[in-house]
Amino acid sequence: MNKPADHIFVIFGASGDLTKRKLVPAIYSLYVQNLLPNNFALLGVSRSNFSDDDFRNKIAAALNEFKEIDDLSKIDSFIKNIFYHSLDSENIEEFATLKNRIENLRNDFNVSGNTIFYLSTPPNLYSVIPNNLAAHGMNLQNDGWKRLIIEKPFGYDYESAEKLKIELMENWQEEQIFRIDHYLGKETVQNLLVTRFSNGIFEPLWNRNYINHVEVTSAESIGVEGRGGYYESSGALRDMVQNHLLQIVGLIAMEPPSSLEPISIRNEILKVFQSFRPIKESEVKKFAIRGQYLASTVKSEHVVGYREEHGVDAHSTTETYAAIKFYIDNWRWGGIPFYIRTGKRLPTRVTEVVIHFKKTPHFLFNTNGSVNSCNQLILRIQPDEGILLKVGMKIPGTGFEVQTVNMDFHYSDLSVVRIPSAYERLLYDSMKGDSTLFARSEEVMAAWKFLMPIINEWKNNKNIPLYGYPSGTWGPERADELFEESNNTWRYPCKNLADDGVYCEL
Amino acid sequence: MNKPADHIFVIFGASGDLTKRKLVPAIYSLYVQNLLPNNFALLGVSRSNFSDDDFRNKIAAALNEFKEIDDLSKIDSFIKNIFYHSLDSENIEEFATLKNRIENLRNDFNVSGNTIFYLSTPPNLYSVIPNNLAAHGMNLQNDGWKRLIIEKPFGYDYESAEKLKIELMENWQEEQIFRIDHYLGKETVQNLLVTRFSNGIFEPLWNRNYINHVEVTSAESIGVEGRGGYYESSGALRDMVQNHLLQIVGLIAMEPPSSLEPISIRNEILKVFQSFRPIKESEVKKFAIRGQYLASTVKSEHVVGYREEHGVDAHSTTETYAAIKFYIDNWRWGGIPFYIRTGKRLPTRVTEVVIHFKKTPHFLFNTNGSVNSCNQLILRIQPDEGILLKVGMKIPGTGFEVQTVNMDFHYSDLSVVRIPSAYERLLYDSMKGDSTLFARSEEVMAAWKFLMPIINEWKNNKNIPLYGYPSGTWGPERADELFEESNNTWRYPCKNLADDGVYCEL
Repeated sequence: MNKPADHIFVIFGASGDLTKRKLVPAIYSLYVQNLLPNNFALLGVSRSNFSDDDFRNKIAAALNEFKEIDDLSKIDSFIKNIFYHSLDSENIEEFATLKNRIENLRNDFNVSGNTIFYLSTPPNLYSVIPNNLAAHGMNLQNDGWKRLIIEKPFGYDYESAEKLKIELMENWQEEQIFRIDHYLGKETVQNLLVTRFSNGIFEPLWNRNYINHVEVTSAESIGVEGRGGYYESSGALRDMVQNHLLQIVGLIAMEPPSSLEPISIRNEILKVFQSFRPIKESEVKKFAIRGQYLASTVKSEHVVGYREEHGVDAHSTTETYAAIKFYIDNWRWGGIPFYIRTGKRLPTRVTEVVIHFKKTPHFLFNTNGSVNSCNQLILRIQPDEGILLKVGMKIPGTGFEVQTVNMDFHYSDLSVVRIPSAYERLLYDSMKGDSTLFARSEEVMAAWKFLMPIINEWKNNKNIPLYGYPSGTWGPERADELFEESNNTWRYPCKNLADDGVYCEL
Repeated sequence: MNKPADHIFVIFGASGDLTKRKLVPAIYSLYVQNLLPNNFALLGVSRSNFSDDDFRNKIAAALNEFKEIDDLSKIDSFIKNIFYHSLDSENIEEFATLKNRIENLRNDFNVSGNTIFYLSTPPNLYSVIPNNLAAHGMNLQNDGWKRLIIEKPFGYDYESAEKLKIELMENWQEEQIFRIDHYLGKETVQNLLVTRFSNGIFEPLWNRNYINHVEVTSAESIGVEGRGGYYESSGALRDMVQNHLLQIVGLIAMEPPSSLEPISIRNEILKVFQSFRPIKESEVKKFAIRGQYLASTVKSEHVVGYREEHGVDAHSTTETYAAIKFYIDNWRWGGIPFYIRTGKRLPTRVTEVVIHFKKTPHFLFNTNGSVNSCNQLILRIQPDEGILLKVGMKIPGTGFEVQTVNMDFHYSDLSVVRIPSAYERLLYDSMKGDSTLFARSEEVMAAWKFLMPIINEWKNNKNIPLYGYPSGTWGPERADELFEESNNTWRYPCKNLADDGVYCEL
């Protein structure tokens, strides 16, 4: 395994929760695995007034508390590379002190100009900080690379995303910007690429001739968990579909890339996004279903409805569930529907892709009530990561009765497997300059463009129903009607859990 | 489940081991499952002088001793339908008494002329008994069907098989003759049909475009077990290849039949046999390998070599191992090699089919030493019946390393599964008149025709080596050279077990 080049890693928003829970544990894990550069310093930046030691102690305490990494014996040596700098990110003048601080660290740690700036801040700072950095020349790559890592949301709609893009691009190049989609950092999302392109048997079947339809589900069992205020301005489409689910569709539907180079893979994903058949505003009612969770009793516990959550408007029309049917108009997928859905307060937490293959053209075994079931390949992204193939096999006994059985592989079957966290993978890749698993600007814009008719209609057209579904169920029953042509339904990996509650139109 | 039509079931060789161990337990199992006709009698025939009750007691004792069937509570009522008739099968006159006896049973049990004659006798009686039956009109179907069940060997070579066929056909029609190949009665052999034709995903891959080669192995860990005298006149080719292995190849390679009717399936298997590319006598050395097991120490126990077995010539050249490479010259399989092997005293007992798919045309993941492995579909016929697919998946961690993992299904995973014995299935089918799982005369002849050059060369050409292999190993090392073009080898489901012993040329 290669170590990344020497660099300074700067985190804006260093006093925040993400830094403590995800970013520093990920960097510490790379340290334990000897995957950090030989010369490396981590500089936390935020408004709070901490000394270096204050910050180090906070980090050490967090590593000990959350125990994301088993081996805690190296914390003492690790935190020697950690520093802190207090800064008002909106004050352009103060960035001179930051520049100075970074230069001192460079000298101390014998690092060239290579620098990563991680923006773990509210999105309203996504254009401010890069601009302030650039005002002091901290975007220039003459003495080493400069990279910017930002997290979703990348805009609130097409227009604001376009604005953010233009602001960023004023001073930064596309290849300097790493847009984190932590879903793409998940092992099993990356395994979609390996499954598709390291197996000779899948590619011949992976097209409109043999696939009937494709289903992508990302279900959460939790609600908005105190983040109601944020969620009110987001909703399922923006929170999950625009980024995670469409990225997964990109990996499932892409053509084989010519190589594993980031540019090859990202080009292929972009081509998929550009091939989405636009959903017209007049078709939104037919192709998309929205829902909002209601109060119910799940496993004997009362669960509040979305509108009763803290920070949520009592008449909110924000969707906590979204299901969309759409087509990819290209030679591989012409005419094959894709179904994606996501929701909060569903019966379980599961993210999976289901490839539904076509039935056999002639069913030989139709005696004794055997039915011609289609093969399904289920790529389980979380939890119980793995792969499952549903195949027809003979029921033992006289005659030729067929039953569907599961052939499966679970990552947990492997004896020694530590599945690295998504952040660990993504931070390492950003240090290496590998942008394969990051969203590029054109993808982000194409995804927004595809979703805008739905976003607009759901906002403006009062005739489009918002369905209430009891917490602990699989969402609006009407979502099955997206499958109208084929008597199919969504796959239900488990049963509804709500003991009460009624489906309704809100 | 349908019951067969009323009939009398006659077993010639009723005092023999097969009757006791296999035939009667199978019929008893059908009885317990209520799958015998309402009016039914079983008549044992052999030279020994037993009374009906003597024979019934022997049968009851055998059922209790071998416990093939769990439910032993119905033995008493079952044996009431069993009778015995003493007869010298070679004495044509005595068949008048048999005819008389059967007619009495018909009257007693209110059965029409439907009769099955099972020849559990030495093969030299295969033409004698049917001829003697016919001499007394017991082949005629004017008062009900008459069926003849015979077991392999169906001849000793092409010539003797042709002779047997002509003798049988003098008085019997092809549809009256049920040639048992107990391999075809195995659940998992029948499952080959279901796996291939109930799954939409396999058929598109099942041809020369996606399959690299096909391997069929039937390994036994035992030796000739006191049957050395019989085996001396047989050998691996006649004992296993001519029937079992080629029938399996037929099921693997056949075109989709138009229906499950016996005639459809048997026609398709026959077409496969007729498409075998003939191996010329001059090519035998290149396409076939023979071996004979030697003494060695297996799991700390001394095991004698074949030539030391009771009844075996000290200079015997009978093969106990055979491996053949061949081609099927048709549109589906043109250019794709099939490899079949069988042997005694190999490390384990296993029968399996391995479909080796082609590698991906472009391997993306060749960094970090990942190799482009081909997918394998393993259809396990015995033991641990099931199906296993080897697929490439991502090794968790940075980068895109690929490892091969197993997706599998085992029949033992099903909660309640009793896999019926091969005889149970085959006897039931013969009672129903379903000849799907029986070998038809043209298949038998086509199989002999294909093997004759090998049989002749191995007998006559002293330049063709007979390799000695230590008992407990996977046979002659030279057998891997059949794969000369492709750096492939046989699949070795487990390691060699011999602690000593040398490979040599005998």
